[in-house]
Amino acid sequence: MTSDTARRPRIVLDCDPGLDDAIAILTAAHHGDLVGITTVNGNVGIEHTTHNALITAQVADLDVEVHRGAARPLIAPTMDAARIHGATGLGDVALPQLRRSAASDDAAAFLCDTARSVDDLHLVAVGPLTNVALALRRDPDLRSRLGGLTIMGGGAHGGNVTSVAEFNVWADPEAAAIVFREAAPLTMVGLDVTHKVLLGDREVSQLRSADTPVSRFAADLLQYALDRCREFGLEAAPIHDATAVIAVTHPHLFARSSHPVAVELHGERTRGMTVTDVRPPAAIAAETAPPSHEVVWDANARAVIDLIVEASVNT
Amino acid sequence: MTSDTARRPRIVLDCDPGLDDAIAILTAAHHGDLVGITTVNGNVGIEHTTHNALITAQVADLDVEVHRGAARPLIAPTMDAARIHGATGLGDVALPQLRRSAASDDAAAFLCDTARSVDDLHLVAVGPLTNVALALRRDPDLRSRLGGLTIMGGGAHGGNVTSVAEFNVWADPEAAAIVFREAAPLTMVGLDVTHKVLLGDREVSQLRSADTPVSRFAADLLQYALDRCREFGLEAAPIHDATAVIAVTHPHLFARSSHPVAVELHGERTRGMTVTDVRPPAAIAAETAPPSHEVVWDANARAVIDLIVEASVNT
Amino acid sequence: MTSDTARRPRIVLDCDPGLDDAIAILTAAHHGDLVGITTVNGNVGIEHTTHNALITAQVADLDVEVHRGAARPLIAPTMDAARIHGATGLGDVALPQLRRSAASDDAAAFLCDTARSVDDLHLVAVGPLTNVALALRRDPDLRSRLGGLTIMGGGAHGGNVTSVAEFNVWADPEAAAIVFREAAPLTMVGLDVTHKVLLGDREVSQLRSADTPVSRFAADLLQYALDRCREFGLEAAPIHDATAVIAVTHPHLFARSSHPVAVELHGERTRGMTVTDVRPPAAIAAETAPPSHEVVWDANARAVIDLIVEASVNT
Amino acid sequence: MTSDTARRPRIVLDCDPGLDDAIAILTAAHHGDLVGITTVNGNVGIEHTTHNALITAQVADLDVEVHRGAARPLIAPTMDAARIHGATGLGDVALPQLRRSAASDDAAAFLCDTARSVDDLHLVAVGPLTNVALALRRDPDLRSRLGGLTIMGGGAHGGNVTSVAEFNVWADPEAAAIVFREAAPLTMVGLDVTHKVLLGDREVSQLRSADTPVSRFAADLLQYALDRCREFGLEAAPIHDATAVIAVTHPHLFARSSHPVAVELHGERTRGMTVTDVRPPAAIAAETAPPSHEVVWDANARAVIDLIVEASVNT
Repeated sequence: MTSDTARRPRIVLDCDPGLDDAIAILTAAHHGDLVGITTVNGNVGIEHTTHNALITAQVADLDVEVHRGAARPLIAPTMDAARIHGATGLGDVALPQLRRSAASDDAAAFLCDTARSVDDLHLVAVGPLTNVALALRRDPDLRSRLGGLTIMGGGAHGGNVTSVAEFNVWADPEAAAIVFREAAPLTMVGLDVTHKVLLGDREVSQLRSADTPVSRFAADLLQYALDRCREFGLEAAPIHDATAVIAVTHPHLFARSSHPVAVELHGERTRGMTVTDVRPPAAIAAETAPPSHEVVWDANARAVIDLIVEASVNT
Repeated sequence: MTSDTARRPRIVLDCDPGLDDAIAILTAAHHGDLVGITTVNGNVGIEHTTHNALITAQVADLDVEVHRGAARPLIAPTMDAARIHGATGLGDVALPQLRRSAASDDAAAFLCDTARSVDDLHLVAVGPLTNVALALRRDPDLRSRLGGLTIMGGGAHGGNVTSVAEFNVWADPEAAAIVFREAAPLTMVGLDVTHKVLLGDREVSQLRSADTPVSRFAADLLQYALDRCREFGLEAAPIHDATAVIAVTHPHLFARSSHPVAVELHGERTRGMTVTDVRPPAAIAAETAPPSHEVVWDANARAVIDLIVEASVNT
Repeated sequence: MTSDTARRPRIVLDCDPGLDDAIAILTAAHHGDLVGITTVNGNVGIEHTTHNALITAQVADLDVEVHRGAARPLIAPTMDAARIHGATGLGDVALPQLRRSAASDDAAAFLCDTARSVDDLHLVAVGPLTNVALALRRDPDLRSRLGGLTIMGGGAHGGNVTSVAEFNVWADPEAAAIVFREAAPLTMVGLDVTHKVLLGDREVSQLRSADTPVSRFAADLLQYALDRCREFGLEAAPIHDATAVIAVTHPHLFARSSHPVAVELHGERTRGMTVTDVRPPAAIAAETAPPSHEVVWDANARAVIDLIVEASVNT
Repeated sequence: MTSDTARRPRIVLDCDPGLDDAIAILTAAHHGDLVGITTVNGNVGIEHTTHNALITAQVADLDVEVHRGAARPLIAPTMDAARIHGATGLGDVALPQLRRSAASDDAAAFLCDTARSVDDLHLVAVGPLTNVALALRRDPDLRSRLGGLTIMGGGAHGGNVTSVAEFNVWADPEAAAIVFREAAPLTMVGLDVTHKVLLGDREVSQLRSADTPVSRFAADLLQYALDRCREFGLEAAPIHDATAVIAVTHPHLFARSSHPVAVELHGERTRGMTVTDVRPPAAIAAETAPPSHEVVWDANARAVIDLIVEASVNT
């Protein structure tokens, strides 16, 4: 436990596990006060992401509800990232029998309700933003009820699925456009920073040494991610979603600045890009600028990595 | 003269003077072998840009033909940058009576003819790419006849007219799309590098000290550019077009790498962006990637600045 | 009563009253079995459209629930048609004090629930399709639970808000795109047919002669619509939404055929167009064709008009 | 000869033969005063269309220059209609050895020059509009120098290559956008009318009966077109391009009206559509309306067909 409960941020994690989402759950439960999990179609289909959220909570013995959310993007066709995360989303990790079930199949309702009932709630969305967009359609004042909104997604300079689009935004650009337009300010933990927080063999070893059920689970997840990265010639793996969680629990470890950001919906080569305006404010026409958000640029990578590992070792 | 004529690159400069275009003409004439100038609508209208190219050649007593080119973009509506360059394109600089006239009004034909007749010709295009696109429509093999093609325009990360679009590409995106698609490889001297080569009071003083007709002319141009920049809170001015010329005459002063680049034509917020794919080659799907170009990232700014000043002092 | 209850189609009317929506409510209650009303932002804001649906039900003494729906389009900015319908949506018609209130503020839930609980339900949507799209996001199988889905919106040839876009589709194109893609087949009662069913002075007189509370109300609504049309030089008024209701209750009065239809989201001049492919099936590439829908082309206008008037005279 | 030379309109025909283009050449030479032919990439590549224009002029012993034009569209990728016209553009018609050659390879220059030197010239463009757009870039006043500009292309309601786009406009939408925007008014002979002028077995028989070299050539072309149409279940063939020629030589046979028309460049399903605004003028916002053009809706089909046949029988 890194701090007493009273000081740890209350977090709802909206996710699509996914390897790094599973590690993000463990991270949020350890460093934050995880009050709920919602699942969304993304890295793999909704049945798998919901199963994987439940199994992760079960492995870590977390007392937290999981609410199933959107089975497909708002408008865009359904895509996945099974090439990275494996066909069922958690690679080839051996999983126990699932003994839990989802608390509801209406994630958007849970998000709206929890935002009303829990003070200073932080919504951390690390998958496509479909659930968050649908929640905004139910409650236009959702953002003002939240203590904070942090997403893993997008980036100011460069993408992964395309040259300029990151997977989570690209997978449901219309949902992201709604969220960036109607839920300002949010904190964008994009590829600018997540590509600088890389876990590798050293962290796998640390996890294996701890030799707890949770650390073994996390080690297996990380090992699978690492193997995929090596196929692209990379020696270490970004664990995007867990990095976004640490940006909420330990914000002082991150460098950020505020800029107008909007999601491009109509480009031939830029659909799903988070168009970020880093020009000096005097050069920006205020009347056409989209809302400003906190763009996270950099992190104390060593410290962030250690916190991510610590969460799995000590849970 | 920085080197003997035989070694200086033969340059045709396609430009839209424009303060920094005028300095680019002086720079190309001094450090290169300037075999022709073509003008294009851009910073101001074609009558002004042609007048300004002619007057610059006259002030510097250059023996070079000026060919008038496109009066408007290929498809986009006509825009200008008179806010930066003044209503007539050379700020409020006092100009002599023009005693020269354009050699023709068909810049595209001159470009095609010169590319055939001059060995190892470098085409340096520092305005909107309308003339170059029209030349490609006359001679699809234009690129292969050139020793090199360098443009001032675009950029991998960030724009000036919009958050992601640079003026020259934004002013005629369809022309730029043609050039990036059909004239590979080109060297893109974009905002990534030109925003790092900044001239200020020190350079104005150097030019004033030389006290020649050309250095006084250049000092006046630079002073006007500097005054505009200060309105935006900047203490020094990028002289984009002259930097592109130095990238041709002194390529060793610049850092570059090769990446797929395409111009976005259809975005709501990204039209005119030079979409640059800096992902590792292994992550790029070859079958959908646009042609690769040399992206210039950085420069030995001090050396480039000194060469630009030297050109105006010693011409 | 035009037929015994057992034979009249069970209708849920999704609407944005609006002059012609109010007449559509009266028409649906008389010629159909109106089992519920949902409201949506459209002709005017959601507070007004909900008020107007309730007041219409009250004037006609209808025993029907009204459920408030979406306050804004899915993604598009909010537009209205107050220029046609007046600032509050029912022109300048004198209205009684409202004594009713909405049964819920979750129209999408009501649509999903009713589709499950009522056999052979016809959903008739005569406003922007936001509620229907949100209902499809809750229940992807919504269409298969319905006996029929008929919309007033779109058209194969020509628009009203733009040259090719009709108001209801144009006001929320992304919602319409979802519905046309995921709820096939629907019946499109678009401008092709509604512009052929025109009510004028004759019908106002018929309604005034009847001199019932409902017929006076309908006469006032029609008179206001007629006055607006005359400003555009038209002598009679299309009552679009009521025509769509008759297409459900008296389908034999309409000519229709089946064609692929999709909503254009990305055009500069065509956003919100219902792109209808009327080419011979042999000329259409099946693999890229959107789902087919019933396009209504023509009507027995005299009969349809008489049925609309009858509904208000006899309720 | 249908009328004395002095009264026949002077025509330059810009074409991409193509079966119906070849018949259009014969039609223009007979009913008009054909002062030149320019060729463009379109139905097949520029080498083939130029060859076919030359061979048609040779078969008919026409004293007319042929100028080769654009080898590819302005910006769009190159497409063809070889599926309809055969791999070389004139089906499988047996052709003599070509004994002629192109007068130049600069169609745009010829168009500009001829527009200046010939009074009251009618430019009839029946292929993609690349040459005409390039001519407008050379001479912005081109339209005012012409007596008339008529195109075969587009249509107000429906397409052939896509549900809403006609081949000639779709094959080079940017060129068409330039022409519709900068060369108003033009006469649009689109699918609305050309699909009503259908030639069939009767016309093949008439041509065979005449038994001249030209009529046999025309019969072979028509027979091939007819065979292709039958593959789509049609019993007669539109001869689009010849219909456009008759609209110039015998304008009284056609019904037309003036409407704003613009070419959509950016749609997902509407790129290449000629967006035609047939709403009442009072309903159109003048400040955003594109230029108006003459839209041809209908024809005295029997008379037009007879004139087309007559041209080939009597040349």
